[in-house]
Amino acid sequence: MKEKIDSSTHSPALALHRARELRTELAAIVGDEWVQDAPSEIIAYSYDGTFQQKRPDLAVSPGSTEEVAEVVKVAAREGRAIVARGASSGLAGGTIAERGGIILNLARMDRILEIDTDNACAVVEAGAITLQLQEAVEKVGLFYPPDPASSRQSTLGGNVACNSGGPRCLKYGVTRDYVTGLTVVLASGEIVRLGGKLTKNSTGPQLLQLFVGSEGTLGIVTQAILKLVPLPRARVTATAAFPELAQASRAVARIMASGILPCTLELMDGTTINVVEDFLQAGLPRAAQALLLLEQDGADEASARRDVEAMAAICRELGASETRVAADAAERETLWAARRAVSPALGRLRPNKLGEDIVVPKSQVPAMIGEIAQIAERHGLPIPVFGHAGDGNLHPNILFDLRDPEEVHKVELAAPDIFRAAIRLGGTLSGEHGIGTLKREFMEEAQGATAVRLSRAIKKVFDPEGLLNPGKLYPTENGVEGFLANLPVLAGFTPG
Amino acid sequence: MKEKIDSSTHSPALALHRARELRTELAAIVGDEWVQDAPSEIIAYSYDGTFQQKRPDLAVSPGSTEEVAEVVKVAAREGRAIVARGASSGLAGGTIAERGGIILNLARMDRILEIDTDNACAVVEAGAITLQLQEAVEKVGLFYPPDPASSRQSTLGGNVACNSGGPRCLKYGVTRDYVTGLTVVLASGEIVRLGGKLTKNSTGPQLLQLFVGSEGTLGIVTQAILKLVPLPRARVTATAAFPELAQASRAVARIMASGILPCTLELMDGTTINVVEDFLQAGLPRAAQALLLLEQDGADEASARRDVEAMAAICRELGASETRVAADAAERETLWAARRAVSPALGRLRPNKLGEDIVVPKSQVPAMIGEIAQIAERHGLPIPVFGHAGDGNLHPNILFDLRDPEEVHKVELAAPDIFRAAIRLGGTLSGEHGIGTLKREFMEEAQGATAVRLSRAIKKVFDPEGLLNPGKLYPTENGVEGFLANLPVLAGFTPG
Repeated sequence: MKEKIDSSTHSPALALHRARELRTELAAIVGDEWVQDAPSEIIAYSYDGTFQQKRPDLAVSPGSTEEVAEVVKVAAREGRAIVARGASSGLAGGTIAERGGIILNLARMDRILEIDTDNACAVVEAGAITLQLQEAVEKVGLFYPPDPASSRQSTLGGNVACNSGGPRCLKYGVTRDYVTGLTVVLASGEIVRLGGKLTKNSTGPQLLQLFVGSEGTLGIVTQAILKLVPLPRARVTATAAFPELAQASRAVARIMASGILPCTLELMDGTTINVVEDFLQAGLPRAAQALLLLEQDGADEASARRDVEAMAAICRELGASETRVAADAAERETLWAARRAVSPALGRLRPNKLGEDIVVPKSQVPAMIGEIAQIAERHGLPIPVFGHAGDGNLHPNILFDLRDPEEVHKVELAAPDIFRAAIRLGGTLSGEHGIGTLKREFMEEAQGATAVRLSRAIKKVFDPEGLLNPGKLYPTENGVEGFLANLPVLAGFTPG
Repeated sequence: MKEKIDSSTHSPALALHRARELRTELAAIVGDEWVQDAPSEIIAYSYDGTFQQKRPDLAVSPGSTEEVAEVVKVAAREGRAIVARGASSGLAGGTIAERGGIILNLARMDRILEIDTDNACAVVEAGAITLQLQEAVEKVGLFYPPDPASSRQSTLGGNVACNSGGPRCLKYGVTRDYVTGLTVVLASGEIVRLGGKLTKNSTGPQLLQLFVGSEGTLGIVTQAILKLVPLPRARVTATAAFPELAQASRAVARIMASGILPCTLELMDGTTINVVEDFLQAGLPRAAQALLLLEQDGADEASARRDVEAMAAICRELGASETRVAADAAERETLWAARRAVSPALGRLRPNKLGEDIVVPKSQVPAMIGEIAQIAERHGLPIPVFGHAGDGNLHPNILFDLRDPEEVHKVELAAPDIFRAAIRLGGTLSGEHGIGTLKREFMEEAQGATAVRLSRAIKKVFDPEGLLNPGKLYPTENGVEGFLANLPVLAGFTPG
């Protein structure tokens, strides 16, 4: 074992020599082709799903849990930061190596190791793609419900790190509800296996659950055992268009109190409807101020359809100008295509967007939507809203231009206003995206100083040297004001 | 604030004086009638649902979170152990004050503070009774699924502490799946509120989930916000009797792989059937070696009945000698009465029972049942088995007489054999009862030394002085061999 390199060295020649030594050592673990440090290669590991960018010192793509453990041991010895990354489709900056260090690219570990039909679970590597798991298990009549919008790219390890959700989570719960086992590489390089193929487990504190949502700050999740459920035999989808947003909000509340638990209850506001229609020409009602996407699944077509018809009737009663129940799978696909187009369509409106992800008690959805409208008005920024209205998880998207300092300043005022409105209404900062860099300054406001102190102390237990995804989740020293200034933003950066 | 009392004092007069001072101080917080230290009163706080007994030094019954906080502050100053307790129906010794100290009786805080139909959640005090919440929410069309067998006595705070389950958890998940908010008094006496009326939350590590299943070792849960779901509109129940246990096991596996997710799939072995029949004269098939209790709920009677009929058909195909689908609610009640009678009926067979609670991957249920039969044979002890076969959570009950040292020694050999068989089959120590004193010696075998070390370090973060339910969950220094010898057992103790 080599002695620790003094990182305070100021000799560029020595630093270069040691960087080469480190590269050689890591290459010996993972293979030469899986270590990248050339600027042209590193760029690919410098961004995520936000507008943030920062080049790491190097990127390592291990092929197994054991290789991850060896890489982590080297990083620990060298005092290098380790930022685990899957597809980096994250929307909170969680995989940006803002302090440099080593990107641990888990995308190579993308195997579905086992689909265990007897125990209704799957064993996957961290880099396995969410949609690929879903498609594989559906072929054998099973179902993995969590469905983040990024499911075509996002990895299951990333879903675990962020406790990802999605439209179906209203009925089925979020990622944490499906994780029954994890293999984790600790900051020391030790490998620990938690849980198993067990859906009930009351064996002490839930260490396993602590890793879900901890965004790579407590350990590197390399494998997961995920619970599966029987694939619903039928699925029926509908839309309801409303002349006023408040009518749609009231319809959401009424549906949720009706005894029906739909699998999906999604909302788009008027701006979003029009932006999607520009993008897709799907025949969406441009005059509407709100569109609900309703879906029910179940044991048979008749019962699912009955629930959807009942929800459509509630919508009409509360002022919907138009309801449309998909007659078949093809029509259902058209309705969903509009929902899936929201994020890319909004992305075309302005150079940048801050895709927010607050969550409030579902009864507060109308109040929260009202607050967002006022905030947009107050700061003169477009903030279209869409999201999972049924569980109170809304995505206000602040559209702006990062090159315009005045607009950036407005965003710096508007985003905290949104967070604070959510907190005031009994909600919190994130329903499914996580905290990363984007919301860390607001953690104490959301959770209180004591909870943040406890979380930091737990972080210290798992990662005493602070090498695992350093700086994420917790407030920086600079504090809340001008929080975008704390982000690693390379405005005007042009990928080579 | 008083100075800390030196607990090493050896003057009985001084100790008595200080005990009186402590009593006075606690009485000033909670009211004189809510502090008990007379031996005749303390007895009521000396036992739980096992055969263990140990008198605490005194018992305090606070009436609010603030009173709990004040009591904890006094205890912290005095270096006194605090053991929180609800109904003490627990089956793992978690609320036995084995090292003396203060019992914090939360049974007085039994209010359902709010049933929020708009947000489909309830806010309860820790001492609220599980069944009372269930009945209250069902009146307004909502449903709280976790249903431990002790639901008539057990408190929701206790359910949170043990991450309790029950028959319906097969479909609906366990307590942890329903906890969205907690109020916790920390070891310092600080009050912290975690989560809220939110079903989605990706705001940092799940501190809240850490308290679920931690058995009062990390903090005192005083209030909880619990998610509710729509009350299923229909429910259909059936039984299937089998000439051989292996046939029933195979039927369970086949049902779980059939695409049906029943709300309940319970198993009783032949001994259990006969013991219950002795107790209840319910007309159970005495010749059968296994009985399955099957239930499905759903949107309507027809679809629930269809699932139950399909399950009954699978059972007949795999050798069931008799299947019986309840025609109505009254007949359903009869079938359930038999299931509910299992534990009290077994309790009458022998003076004592060790009600075990292992969980294995559901595919290993047949193997586990085979192992238990061999262990019973090997040690010459009756070990009837029942439990939640659908999720792999079995309750082998070792029946014995605590007054017979030879039998106690056999139990000390048989119980570890059961634990180790479960671990070998990919399972673990507890599916729903928790660890308490009864299974702590096996935690390292079940989870590995690293996981136990991390859990202990987290305990240290929350409770640096080790005052919250000390000694529970983690191995004692005496180790595994002769584990019953480490328990606070007052054999022959006769409550006054």
